[in-house]
Amino acid sequence: MSEPEGLDTDAGTDAGIPPDMGIYDEDGVVSAPFLAHIGAAIADRDTLTLKKDVGSLHQSEIGDLLEALLPEQRLALVVLMGDDFDYTALTEVDEAIRLEILENLPNRQVARAVEQLDSDDAVYILEDLDQADQDEILAELPFTERVRLRRSLGYPEETAGRRMQTEFVAVPPFWTVGQTIDYMREEQNLPESFSQIFVIDPTFRLVGAVDLDRILRTNRTTKIEDIMRETRHAIPATMDQEEAAQIFEKYDLLSAAVVDENDRLVGVLTIDDVVDVIQQEAEEDLLRLGGVGDEELSDRVMAAARSRVPWLMVNLLTAFLAASVIGLFDGTIEKIVALAVLMPIVAGMGGNAGSQTMTVTVRALATRDIDIYNAGRIIRREMGVGLLNGLIFAVLIGTVAALWFQDPNLGGIIAAAMVINMFVAALAGILIPLLLDRVGADPAVASAVFVTAMTDVVGFFAFLGLATWWFGLL
Amino acid sequence: MSEPEGLDTDAGTDAGIPPDMGIYDEDGVVSAPFLAHIGAAIADRDTLTLKKDVGSLHQSEIGDLLEALLPEQRLALVVLMGDDFDYTALTEVDEAIRLEILENLPNRQVARAVEQLDSDDAVYILEDLDQADQDEILAELPFTERVRLRRSLGYPEETAGRRMQTEFVAVPPFWTVGQTIDYMREEQNLPESFSQIFVIDPTFRLVGAVDLDRILRTNRTTKIEDIMRETRHAIPATMDQEEAAQIFEKYDLLSAAVVDENDRLVGVLTIDDVVDVIQQEAEEDLLRLGGVGDEELSDRVMAAARSRVPWLMVNLLTAFLAASVIGLFDGTIEKIVALAVLMPIVAGMGGNAGSQTMTVTVRALATRDIDIYNAGRIIRREMGVGLLNGLIFAVLIGTVAALWFQDPNLGGIIAAAMVINMFVAALAGILIPLLLDRVGADPAVASAVFVTAMTDVVGFFAFLGLATWWFGLL
Repeated sequence: MSEPEGLDTDAGTDAGIPPDMGIYDEDGVVSAPFLAHIGAAIADRDTLTLKKDVGSLHQSEIGDLLEALLPEQRLALVVLMGDDFDYTALTEVDEAIRLEILENLPNRQVARAVEQLDSDDAVYILEDLDQADQDEILAELPFTERVRLRRSLGYPEETAGRRMQTEFVAVPPFWTVGQTIDYMREEQNLPESFSQIFVIDPTFRLVGAVDLDRILRTNRTTKIEDIMRETRHAIPATMDQEEAAQIFEKYDLLSAAVVDENDRLVGVLTIDDVVDVIQQEAEEDLLRLGGVGDEELSDRVMAAARSRVPWLMVNLLTAFLAASVIGLFDGTIEKIVALAVLMPIVAGMGGNAGSQTMTVTVRALATRDIDIYNAGRIIRREMGVGLLNGLIFAVLIGTVAALWFQDPNLGGIIAAAMVINMFVAALAGILIPLLLDRVGADPAVASAVFVTAMTDVVGFFAFLGLATWWFGLL
Repeated sequence: MSEPEGLDTDAGTDAGIPPDMGIYDEDGVVSAPFLAHIGAAIADRDTLTLKKDVGSLHQSEIGDLLEALLPEQRLALVVLMGDDFDYTALTEVDEAIRLEILENLPNRQVARAVEQLDSDDAVYILEDLDQADQDEILAELPFTERVRLRRSLGYPEETAGRRMQTEFVAVPPFWTVGQTIDYMREEQNLPESFSQIFVIDPTFRLVGAVDLDRILRTNRTTKIEDIMRETRHAIPATMDQEEAAQIFEKYDLLSAAVVDENDRLVGVLTIDDVVDVIQQEAEEDLLRLGGVGDEELSDRVMAAARSRVPWLMVNLLTAFLAASVIGLFDGTIEKIVALAVLMPIVAGMGGNAGSQTMTVTVRALATRDIDIYNAGRIIRREMGVGLLNGLIFAVLIGTVAALWFQDPNLGGIIAAAMVINMFVAALAGILIPLLLDRVGADPAVASAVFVTAMTDVVGFFAFLGLATWWFGLL
């Protein structure tokens, strides 16, 4: 867990940075004068200025600064600041930038930095390094630190065990509030910050938890077991981080105990890490719906291009499928070229209507807002919406097409095709994601392909087919 | 703020519900036996069972239950449970369901419920009611409660002032830790839960804050002013909730002071509300990119259909624009019908490539990951990706088209058109959102229209234009 801080959003401005120089400009971007000031200090190897002006910043401000600096300045800044550099800042930058800095630092220096960090930040920094570097850094650490980090790193990626902090306060149930407060006043080795303490039995098994405000409003003589909440179901260390985040959201938790397979307390998961998980999961859904895989802004051309090829390839197949449907009617198009002009409208409007329904459905699935109790109602609703909007746009498009080509028949045909395609679009937009979810596939990834394939094929087929039949060109 | 609770994720199971009956099934959906059990109790007007089995649930569990019940059962449940119903559950359900219940309850009963709630939950419930009901409910409340709620409701929607909780603990700076702890032990009127206390001067102006863990590790004789953090820039009550959420994320806050225009402490914003804001904003971005406005799953056909018409209308205009581009080349299509078969492939692939780039850009803008320091690099990257993937798919599609129609000329023409359109798609995908953001428009709403309009027009024009020129049909 990163240390919660106060609202010193301009923590930099009182630390010797020229008083007229904010670290951010009015757009919330690192300000050009501040960047120039730091750049000059790096060029001059002016460690005093750097320690004073960068050392006083919040980790996320240092992260923003690192991202704004040129690649060669980043490493120089870290090296020049030495032990005064706040390595938690590395948890705030893109993976590519983090690795670039870490791989160019001596492992011994990284180890010295990692030793100072809370375990969750240490794991965050270590987990993307290659095994050899990881082992070398861990070997430099004191025994207990090494064991803790190895245990966290032993849990699979994206689990609660990976994200937890292994520093926490735990007391036995028979202690009084007074004893507990005295312990916290005397103990030097407490976590940097915490919002609840845990209650454990002699075998480290979790029996309860007490929020700090509860302790503060209780008399010294009261026993902890009398004010603790039972936490019969803590978060298993192997639980997926997304599932853990959903529990946090559901029960409005600030922190939660993480337990191993024997129900022993091994760490604490805190809301700030969960907020990052929520952001990350929302981002994944959005990118997947847009047909982009795991991609970071710092990726280079080759990596970004490669990550987008699979989706384009699948779309190519469906595009050829749609083209072959058109090919069935080439004779009709040859005779009535207006069909070629109008057909993308039918397919395109269906595609848009389908992706509206699909977006709503995918989001509802992600937030678990759709279930067996309301699925039937929502399917019926989408069918109604598809039919209603289909009729509205059929009239509109039919009229325009009839006037454009001076042919009421054409207007009628495109109107009929629109109603059919918008209705199919609605059905596809809701049923395809639901079906994919049911069979265990990620609806955000695959829905769009199937929905647009459906609306293209049906759109072209309905429009060209109706025209062929009506004009007697069969 | 809702009360943070322990991990009693199955809080229901020990409360008299038949022991073999979980309230959720393995999919995390309200279980059918539990739903039947509650449904039967409602039908029997068995208030004892309801108070026992629903009264013991967490607010979000009651929310899930309400959503799973039939509309007529919902109101019956609330009425039968009377004052034992936990009205915070209404903050966990869809707006339509909340309004349906509230509008069918006597205002006097809503007022009695609101009086028991934390102010942020009370505001959440009141804000969507119509003015007359709101006034009637507020008139029933005690004076101080009414003044507080009116002040919160006076701030614009989606601001920190609307979301804040007006219950907080504030002490003068000269108090000692001991005095502060004694005050909290004696005072009955504390917020349900809190993670920091604020330090104020006699005019209620905010001077600092202290986290509870800091108080617990400090000796009783230490003065509060010696351990407080300065909070020189608290969150103004009129700040947009999204901006406030970004500050929480940036500085890993658990709660933050909210101040009025005179820097006087008026409330506290807590992380659980911020998590809701983050979810809501991510949802808005996703829905807007999918062409859906403010829409809820509980909306009926008419409301949902209406919310989707504007986007379809805009798309209709761009579809006709694209059709008129095709119309320019009707003579060419009449002679070479294969062009009509292949042209949707060029437009469609461009559209997909453009929406990939656009999705990445819109997300990066939302998370402020793109700024003047990396925009140039990212634009160059996208141009590279567009060119590279354009070349790859040009070769692929060109080969298939040449073989399909036994015409190498056609293959060459579609390949050239693909390179042009994928490159334009990349440019449009990044420049259009950046431009919209620069002029203050929401890139999530409008980007998709412009990007697909661009890729359709350029795709059709490049392909049909090149063919017309190459085959000498000008």
